[in-house]
Amino acid sequence: MPTARPDTLRVFSLNCWGIRFFSQLCTQRYEMIGKLLGREQHDIALLQEVWSERDFLFLKRKLSSSHPYTHYFKSGVIGSGLAVFSKHRIQDALLYQYSLNGYPYMLHAEYSRAQDEYLTHRIVQSWELLQFVRHTSCGADLVVLGGDLNMHPQDLGNRLLRSHTGLRDCYTETDTFDGCEDGHTLIADNHFTKKQDLVPFETGIRIDYILMKGSQRVSMKCETLSTTKGPVADKPFPYSDHEALTAELSLLRSEDSRQHGSSDALAVSEQMDVVAEARAVVKEGLCQTEALRDKAMHLMFGGLLSLLLPLALAFLPCFCSFSTLGLLGAVCMSLLLSGALLYLLFTAHIKVLKETEDQMMLTSNDLQTKLTGCRLSASPSSDGSPDLQPLSPFKQEE
Amino acid sequence: MPTARPDTLRVFSLNCWGIRFFSQLCTQRYEMIGKLLGREQHDIALLQEVWSERDFLFLKRKLSSSHPYTHYFKSGVIGSGLAVFSKHRIQDALLYQYSLNGYPYMLHAEYSRAQDEYLTHRIVQSWELLQFVRHTSCGADLVVLGGDLNMHPQDLGNRLLRSHTGLRDCYTETDTFDGCEDGHTLIADNHFTKKQDLVPFETGIRIDYILMKGSQRVSMKCETLSTTKGPVADKPFPYSDHEALTAELSLLRSEDSRQHGSSDALAVSEQMDVVAEARAVVKEGLCQTEALRDKAMHLMFGGLLSLLLPLALAFLPCFCSFSTLGLLGAVCMSLLLSGALLYLLFTAHIKVLKETEDQMMLTSNDLQTKLTGCRLSASPSSDGSPDLQPLSPFKQEE
Repeated sequence: MPTARPDTLRVFSLNCWGIRFFSQLCTQRYEMIGKLLGREQHDIALLQEVWSERDFLFLKRKLSSSHPYTHYFKSGVIGSGLAVFSKHRIQDALLYQYSLNGYPYMLHAEYSRAQDEYLTHRIVQSWELLQFVRHTSCGADLVVLGGDLNMHPQDLGNRLLRSHTGLRDCYTETDTFDGCEDGHTLIADNHFTKKQDLVPFETGIRIDYILMKGSQRVSMKCETLSTTKGPVADKPFPYSDHEALTAELSLLRSEDSRQHGSSDALAVSEQMDVVAEARAVVKEGLCQTEALRDKAMHLMFGGLLSLLLPLALAFLPCFCSFSTLGLLGAVCMSLLLSGALLYLLFTAHIKVLKETEDQMMLTSNDLQTKLTGCRLSASPSSDGSPDLQPLSPFKQEE
Repeated sequence: MPTARPDTLRVFSLNCWGIRFFSQLCTQRYEMIGKLLGREQHDIALLQEVWSERDFLFLKRKLSSSHPYTHYFKSGVIGSGLAVFSKHRIQDALLYQYSLNGYPYMLHAEYSRAQDEYLTHRIVQSWELLQFVRHTSCGADLVVLGGDLNMHPQDLGNRLLRSHTGLRDCYTETDTFDGCEDGHTLIADNHFTKKQDLVPFETGIRIDYILMKGSQRVSMKCETLSTTKGPVADKPFPYSDHEALTAELSLLRSEDSRQHGSSDALAVSEQMDVVAEARAVVKEGLCQTEALRDKAMHLMFGGLLSLLLPLALAFLPCFCSFSTLGLLGAVCMSLLLSGALLYLLFTAHIKVLKETEDQMMLTSNDLQTKLTGCRLSASPSSDGSPDLQPLSPFKQEE
């Protein structure tokens, strides 16, 4: 039998801002990050934006004795940038790629709330993330999710994620906190922060998180949470343009911990509200994307029609030179091609948005059923929490 | 308390071959499929290659009373083609897109074993499928996987999937079977089958499956499995170019069913063998793809160098006409572009292959640890099956 004394799990998260030849002072900063991790001996370090495999391999060598277990997630043309270092054996790894990742023809401007071009994409990503957590965490003793979520604490995507997974934010849950004001992880006092990224949040933004939940078998609590605070003692610059997070989590084996479940009527109706809000965003995004697809179709047809012009000119007697015709043809052709590519892009996005909306509808219906169940069994339940019957092909027989 | 009499779950699977304007007699066949489903009243119908949403909506209307619950999975430009019809409420849906889906510049020739260009892609897909099943089925009472897997029964991908998920093949498990010889689902006797697809398996191929497994709470058994047999009585043609499968599964609630677990030493060592075999294929594919990426790079540089030719010619006095130069330039430019696109494509494929190989290595290591555990605790175990300790941050304390 285990003792009653809680065990601890120390988790670290940092967006390393590791774009070779673009991010400033990469080599020196990885040197610092390696030293920090080797010294601090966290159980698990979750690193983001480790874009270069060489930098990952540098850390891997550096941490081979303190963190012998590691996984670097590889995907896409440029990779995922995600690396995990662990003192504990990693038994398995699974990678899920988001279906929507912004538009390739726009730069991914992150932090402006005023005109968030990507709100829909963020909501779809939040949805996919929460579905991933829900469906893969069933047998887990505990779940820890850490990283740069690119969302403010009260953003819809963040509320959606928390309410539908039961994950709790270490910053709001911690017993003691030591770090930047309001837990900010993008701060004006950081050497590398572009000040215009912070407008209108001059004091800072909190977009990096460590979230956690226990299970029926393990209850979980955040004892302390800390962040780095920009400048590093004895160093001329910070670890990254983001601040790092460290959470000390206490784990206690328990036989009847209830914290994992959040199926009381209040929680269910909150889940319903937030999924309704998210669904509205996805629907709005769907309309916008359908309009964009129409525009792409117009562009395509415009290109097709305008191709007739150089063709017609070619048959007129010496109206203009071959090179002019060729140039004109090339311009029309590229209009046609751009239109076609955009049409395909928006068609694929529309499919994703529809799929997400359908899934949200299924969840809404399911919550509605649960809520009815909750209300029916509200008071006379044996343990205060309604027994929510999952879908089952079993017939009810006496 | 439930009764001891088993409940049944009737599952249907069909590749509908529903490419509008290409697949023959689509409208008439969907009419037939709709009638079949309405009449047969399966609990769950799993349909593949329902490429047109209009055809899905036709079935949805047709089956609104027999199968009120349905989900049509939307993704990519052309959709997933997957539809589920159910008598039971669908609580949630989740879509996972494979990372590798063949090469866009080749036609997806399916059934030739002699020179399977796609062996690596199939193995990666099998791996992703089994990871999806493993990680999402933890809390499930039962798992049913049905569809056209594009693999023969003893193909590596199929063995990998079965051994690592514990899913059992209804064809080999069923008490009674009524259908085509050897369970074939692509048969010469089907009006729509292209005979050259069957070479060298003239009598037929089995590539459609219903797989299943129970859990600790539910034991599962296949009572009967049947297939359609090409021609349909009173109809001039079959439902599809594939045969349909119907499985009648019996479910029995149980408190200590052991069938879900497959962690005895024999099963573990079989899992190790098959994952080693798969890893060798992925490694081989990695080498090939790296060679292809090198070729793409040569093409790209070739295009770049050859661009110098028209540029040089342009500066020579009237050596050739502008139109010739333009044409030459366009050819070189398209060489360069094709090379660049192929380079990006192969780079992304290499990332996926490396990620898959890393995951397979994690699994191998984990199995090795289990095997050691199995052997250590081989005989004195209380119930014959070793207690396999999952990764845990808990320290062992007395």
